[in-house]
Amino acid sequence: MTAKTALVISAHSADFVWRAAGAIALHAEAGLSVSVICLSYGERGESAKLWRQAGMTLEKVKTERRKEAEAAAHALGVADIQFWDLGDYPIALSEESLFRLAGTYRALRPSFVLTHSREDPYNRDHPLVSEFTQHARIIAQAHGHKPGETVLGAPPVFLFEPHQPEQCRWMPNVLLDITPVWEKKLAAIKCMAGQEHLWEYYTRVAEQRGVQAARNSDKKITYGEAYEAVFPHVVETLVPTEGRK
Amino acid sequence: MTAKTALVISAHSADFVWRAAGAIALHAEAGLSVSVICLSYGERGESAKLWRQAGMTLEKVKTERRKEAEAAAHALGVADIQFWDLGDYPIALSEESLFRLAGTYRALRPSFVLTHSREDPYNRDHPLVSEFTQHARIIAQAHGHKPGETVLGAPPVFLFEPHQPEQCRWMPNVLLDITPVWEKKLAAIKCMAGQEHLWEYYTRVAEQRGVQAARNSDKKITYGEAYEAVFPHVVETLVPTEGRK
Amino acid sequence: MTAKTALVISAHSADFVWRAAGAIALHAEAGLSVSVICLSYGERGESAKLWRQAGMTLEKVKTERRKEAEAAAHALGVADIQFWDLGDYPIALSEESLFRLAGTYRALRPSFVLTHSREDPYNRDHPLVSEFTQHARIIAQAHGHKPGETVLGAPPVFLFEPHQPEQCRWMPNVLLDITPVWEKKLAAIKCMAGQEHLWEYYTRVAEQRGVQAARNSDKKITYGEAYEAVFPHVVETLVPTEGRK
Amino acid sequence: MTAKTALVISAHSADFVWRAAGAIALHAEAGLSVSVICLSYGERGESAKLWRQAGMTLEKVKTERRKEAEAAAHALGVADIQFWDLGDYPIALSEESLFRLAGTYRALRPSFVLTHSREDPYNRDHPLVSEFTQHARIIAQAHGHKPGETVLGAPPVFLFEPHQPEQCRWMPNVLLDITPVWEKKLAAIKCMAGQEHLWEYYTRVAEQRGVQAARNSDKKITYGEAYEAVFPHVVETLVPTEGRK
Amino acid sequence: MTAKTALVISAHSADFVWRAAGAIALHAEAGLSVSVICLSYGERGESAKLWRQAGMTLEKVKTERRKEAEAAAHALGVADIQFWDLGDYPIALSEESLFRLAGTYRALRPSFVLTHSREDPYNRDHPLVSEFTQHARIIAQAHGHKPGETVLGAPPVFLFEPHQPEQCRWMPNVLLDITPVWEKKLAAIKCMAGQEHLWEYYTRVAEQRGVQAARNSDKKITYGEAYEAVFPHVVETLVPTEGRK
Amino acid sequence: MTAKTALVISAHSADFVWRAAGAIALHAEAGLSVSVICLSYGERGESAKLWRQAGMTLEKVKTERRKEAEAAAHALGVADIQFWDLGDYPIALSEESLFRLAGTYRALRPSFVLTHSREDPYNRDHPLVSEFTQHARIIAQAHGHKPGETVLGAPPVFLFEPHQPEQCRWMPNVLLDITPVWEKKLAAIKCMAGQEHLWEYYTRVAEQRGVQAARNSDKKITYGEAYEAVFPHVVETLVPTEGRK
Repeated sequence: MTAKTALVISAHSADFVWRAAGAIALHAEAGLSVSVICLSYGERGESAKLWRQAGMTLEKVKTERRKEAEAAAHALGVADIQFWDLGDYPIALSEESLFRLAGTYRALRPSFVLTHSREDPYNRDHPLVSEFTQHARIIAQAHGHKPGETVLGAPPVFLFEPHQPEQCRWMPNVLLDITPVWEKKLAAIKCMAGQEHLWEYYTRVAEQRGVQAARNSDKKITYGEAYEAVFPHVVETLVPTEGRK
Repeated sequence: MTAKTALVISAHSADFVWRAAGAIALHAEAGLSVSVICLSYGERGESAKLWRQAGMTLEKVKTERRKEAEAAAHALGVADIQFWDLGDYPIALSEESLFRLAGTYRALRPSFVLTHSREDPYNRDHPLVSEFTQHARIIAQAHGHKPGETVLGAPPVFLFEPHQPEQCRWMPNVLLDITPVWEKKLAAIKCMAGQEHLWEYYTRVAEQRGVQAARNSDKKITYGEAYEAVFPHVVETLVPTEGRK
Repeated sequence: MTAKTALVISAHSADFVWRAAGAIALHAEAGLSVSVICLSYGERGESAKLWRQAGMTLEKVKTERRKEAEAAAHALGVADIQFWDLGDYPIALSEESLFRLAGTYRALRPSFVLTHSREDPYNRDHPLVSEFTQHARIIAQAHGHKPGETVLGAPPVFLFEPHQPEQCRWMPNVLLDITPVWEKKLAAIKCMAGQEHLWEYYTRVAEQRGVQAARNSDKKITYGEAYEAVFPHVVETLVPTEGRK
Repeated sequence: MTAKTALVISAHSADFVWRAAGAIALHAEAGLSVSVICLSYGERGESAKLWRQAGMTLEKVKTERRKEAEAAAHALGVADIQFWDLGDYPIALSEESLFRLAGTYRALRPSFVLTHSREDPYNRDHPLVSEFTQHARIIAQAHGHKPGETVLGAPPVFLFEPHQPEQCRWMPNVLLDITPVWEKKLAAIKCMAGQEHLWEYYTRVAEQRGVQAARNSDKKITYGEAYEAVFPHVVETLVPTEGRK
Repeated sequence: MTAKTALVISAHSADFVWRAAGAIALHAEAGLSVSVICLSYGERGESAKLWRQAGMTLEKVKTERRKEAEAAAHALGVADIQFWDLGDYPIALSEESLFRLAGTYRALRPSFVLTHSREDPYNRDHPLVSEFTQHARIIAQAHGHKPGETVLGAPPVFLFEPHQPEQCRWMPNVLLDITPVWEKKLAAIKCMAGQEHLWEYYTRVAEQRGVQAARNSDKKITYGEAYEAVFPHVVETLVPTEGRK
Repeated sequence: MTAKTALVISAHSADFVWRAAGAIALHAEAGLSVSVICLSYGERGESAKLWRQAGMTLEKVKTERRKEAEAAAHALGVADIQFWDLGDYPIALSEESLFRLAGTYRALRPSFVLTHSREDPYNRDHPLVSEFTQHARIIAQAHGHKPGETVLGAPPVFLFEPHQPEQCRWMPNVLLDITPVWEKKLAAIKCMAGQEHLWEYYTRVAEQRGVQAARNSDKKITYGEAYEAVFPHVVETLVPTEGRK
């Protein structure tokens, strides 16, 4: 019997850490095989600290960013991390990449998918990747795409929390309790040497979402991650799970 | 050990049948003690067929509507059905009723709450009851309301599907599989002799929501009910439940 | 055979002029019997110029406002204008008034209804009247309200253009060509001696909406009025009417 | 004198049947010359049943889908059906196709246009076609596009009902009575042998929209189609048409 | 010459501290005379810690809450703090209170007004107070309300950040730099002994809004408060102010 | 010391006049160096009057449009006007143009940016240019784009008023007093000989926005321009500026 899987599509190589490290660690601990695809390294747009170093080149930035992301993935128990190196600011999302991602969907058959928000006035790559990720999922569902292969079902898609949530018309409708894996998320965050100014910011995000998760339940929760579910939840009961009390 | 409970607040005495009979039967079968409160009989505004009979009076309409609702509740396994007789078109929601409902929340400590949508241009009582139901929940959470009593936690609230959903700015974000209890819902619907014109309408609603639930999952679902969750889902996993396949 | 009717509910005695005089004149010319109900005179909140006169009293303001409104109604061919004198800033909308208006609906059986927008951060009476007007319509549809009377059908409701439209979350989805009756609207506007500063403003509104109406059709239109339809249009064809070319 | 025309832009070869067959039959009966353009066959993404047959190829699927669409068009009285074969999942909408469609607009000068909704998280081709259809209309209005040709006026655009309407932020603001042509729509639906699972679904959609159309009017309506109008209705009267009672 | 003033309307006696202490201290330092009106003490709904003490009574809670609020007001340089004691959960907002607040507006003629968000599914008093505050402002602008008094102009209204912002459909469109007065806000927060669990939460809110304010400008900002402006900003220039760099 | 700058991105060569001439003249008078970039001449889609002349060619239209725009720019005190000649209906926005605009941002370091609204169902070029303008701003902020150059800060972006504002989901949240420069705006408008039908329309727009600006403040304002700010305002005070009274 094979393990369940999850698929995380990250526009830049650090996004999966700030936004989804808790979900990754939690499901990896639960036995899922989690795949992370970094479509770019964020080498142009999200590596300010590295560019301030003398003699920096695009290749050196990519190498450094890759090392950081691999270390973070290791800390989180990621089964597979891929770097597609599609460039950033702007990211180049070709039809070839679309079909490649559709193939990944079919190979993995993930239980759920994580990616970026639909809008972001501060970042153009994030909404492009969100659309791309959802588009590839639809292609993977098409019976006429590589006929003979087993088509994809309907895995739910959850959208990461963007940096300035209200400005992105993003609505958190799922709060995930990441308290049991907080230390792993923090360890992964600390792998991101190039963006040290964000460590405290995203620690506070986790604390605020933890307080809110506790308020929206009768559970004892300290750290949380927020997501927007794209599709309706299909459920067999309306009774909340027990959780930690 | 006491059973879990659920609380259904219905503006008129038939609303809980069209909109939530599946959820009620499903959770009653699962062992929950489900309480239904009919704030009015819908005697003025939702009893057209009865009023077409000769010699009809307000009291006769109420009696008839009560009988139908009790029969439906019986068919669904409702543990307790109450009729508060607050009048309809317009419903009269006093502070006294508000505190009474707050008391009910505290006495039951429901695992979840069902009620009407926030807007409805075709029906003024429904949004008033939605606000009232949510307001009473907030009162029941206040430590200074009847100090000494145990305060309410944070049960999730799910909003029923209104008659013309898009016009009510209501967004279905939860699809409940009611296939296993469909026969019970149909039996309850057929208790509503006074609104026979709605039987087929709500059968079709259940079929459409069933198709949509199957489409949004990899499950085999024939009948569904749709709800709008008011608050974020607090969860420990993003993996969908297995369900029927 | 009786004429068709239309019903216009105006929070203050001048609102029907600025916002709906074109519709009123147009339908009166077409043979409809148009009833206007001014729920208040706008004596406290919309009579600044009168209050600047020495020795002004509430009664004098009401008298003056009534005269102006009657003159405007006359200019427009209004069949019946009523003044319910419910007070303004804030308007007092009792259950008694609600039932009175429900009775008016049943007596008139209007082909359509005009009233205020659902929101207005500059004016609290307007949204209250909008809700009240729609609520009374629902009461008039209830078979158990004064059983024996013929219940109301489903006349469409159109919402007036508010003073600062975008701030009121009001969406114009109907543009009415009022070119043939513009002179009557202008005459009615000029009856409003107390609010002379609005004459040019609402003339420009009519010109802008006229340009937009021409742009959204292939018709020659100079003056327009914009409305938001509350309910879907029920139609037998999607082909636009011919209009003036 | 030439007949009026209507233009229906369908992303895949069956979309015009599920979503607009009633409108097509109704206006064809009324004497309009209705043109349907199927931009693709839906050969990859909407032909699951065909792909389950042994030895199926892309060409065979296209041939089969074309036959079905032609049969449906015939049943509806379509004057002209075109297949542009632009591919699907994803559809390829080039500038050349854009200008071709602009030319079609100018040649036909349609009284109205039907196409897909602006958003659809289940289908990427539909919103792309919606934007493309509206874009071509704008090009056709430009005086500098093929100067000398007569430019297009401003035909209204109505958006089809998508499969899961609420999830597509689509708002039905026009309900078309298709009762007189229901048998024709049903016949057209039954031409779609490859998607038999949708026959009942869209029959129920027509029944629900029929009930709603009756509720929003005083007319006797059994079957309906819902549309979202993109532009404001430009009208000469607010009195609803008579319709069937 | 008299000082400019500002008016802060707080549903419960601690709200002005969590949500607006920075704005209060900043403008008090700038020479404005800031008035705070606590419409209730939050004695029933927001005093959980006090109610856990043995022998607590409603009067004792009120006394304790008043002391805390007065200490906080003192720390912030508030010129005038009033306690209207209108009750909470639910708050009772009579017409008498409405006119009293209208009178306060006219007496103070504030340069700006701060109050609660328009929606809040976790708190019913907050949106009621928001509407009440805006309603009283409109009454104060009416020439026929206490004729002879000078009517109010059009002070801008800014809405506080609610506890769970995205769930309240509240959009932060103003970010106020409160770095220079952060120590005062922290001191005021620490006066709220009864809600110690919120100290860190609102410290983190200030830090997050500070980071966001810096990101949306070229200024050096550490602590911020976010507001939603109800009305458009009327400006003489689009060039941002210099601020701290 | 160098002057401050402002950057105006106009899809077609006349857009900056109708929509932003007041802002341009006002800031030019205040000493800013204002740059206007006309990405196209609007030669195909917005030059109807010219195309009605015999013997007109694309080049002649462009020449004429350029002359008009230059004359208008001169009347407004524009420091630099550029014509990128990218074509219109549809406009062609390549990656090369994106990087060129990013370079312009870095060279100018504007205090603010003006461009089109995010949606416009009547015009496809306008929203494309809006996205393009915001995208280029993000590229200019990226440290890895042309490393060594000074990166751009965070200039605010304001969106022009579109022709039919409500249909474009555009929300005016900034009203600029352009009374002192109205004569200059009018002079610039009158340079647009090819679109004389819009002179009065945009004069009325300025008058309506002027009335609204006066209503939303205590200032004496006759002419206004409305904008939608994309980002939150970062401010050091909530007290409105004095303005003209």
